[in-house]
Amino acid sequence: MRIRFIWPGKTKSGDLRSLEAAYLKKIRLRAECEIVETRAARGMNEKLPDRIREFEAGGLEKQVGGDYIICLFHEGQDMTSDEFAGFLDRNGAVGGRRLAFVVGGFLGLDENFLKKADFRLSLSKMTLSHELARIVLMEQVYRAMTVLKGQNYAK
Amino acid sequence: MRIRFIWPGKTKSGDLRSLEAAYLKKIRLRAECEIVETRAARGMNEKLPDRIREFEAGGLEKQVGGDYIICLFHEGQDMTSDEFAGFLDRNGAVGGRRLAFVVGGFLGLDENFLKKADFRLSLSKMTLSHELARIVLMEQVYRAMTVLKGQNYAK
Repeated sequence: MRIRFIWPGKTKSGDLRSLEAAYLKKIRLRAECEIVETRAARGMNEKLPDRIREFEAGGLEKQVGGDYIICLFHEGQDMTSDEFAGFLDRNGAVGGRRLAFVVGGFLGLDENFLKKADFRLSLSKMTLSHELARIVLMEQVYRAMTVLKGQNYAK
Repeated sequence: MRIRFIWPGKTKSGDLRSLEAAYLKKIRLRAECEIVETRAARGMNEKLPDRIREFEAGGLEKQVGGDYIICLFHEGQDMTSDEFAGFLDRNGAVGGRRLAFVVGGFLGLDENFLKKADFRLSLSKMTLSHELARIVLMEQVYRAMTVLKGQNYAK
């Protein structure tokens, strides 16, 4: 399985960055995995959120060509951890497309970019901060790997 | 509003502990708040999870007398962040009961303790690690404070 986590800019919280690194290391025991930080809007007028999202979407798009794109979106599909493991197994099978998990910046993802996603995933009915959502997502991917490994052992 | 976060044992991950401290500080700008670490099962046989949960419940029970008890539970009620803010506002009003948010240890909460809860809250359909769930919960409480402050300003 080949997995990429893609988001605009470096995660600002040092603690969350450290957790990202820890989960990345754990996921890499089971799959090819990397974090890609694309261009983040800086110094742009926050009163024009559409423009900021569009600018950031430009950077994201350059990274996801050919990938199976999964965008985090609060109105996306929710699922249990086991369902998520099955979802990863189906869509990230060996020889299949690379999975690109995309998390927006502090203003979320561009509407047009969201339309291009193969899947829109919701982690919670609650609104998580975009930086914390990155960690929750990585933890779920790691958990899924563990679930899948168990299933493989059981076979 | 008076809020306590109660769980068995100290959070092991240093990064998550550091995030706990940061959210605690932020929440304290808006409400009385503390984290209470109760006794955690150590050296007990993990093949007897019921006994571990029961042991930990004993420590939790000593802390919550008279409080409005909200237990994190994967089969609990989910809500949006705005609904959660309204929930805090209704149940944590000035002069009201203290709110006790209880998060279990690595094996979750004791069944009998869960029955005593005034409310069972689910943060996600997904299963979060108990330590990460503590942070997601604190972030939601902090977010709720911000929402409520905004509402008050708007009035």
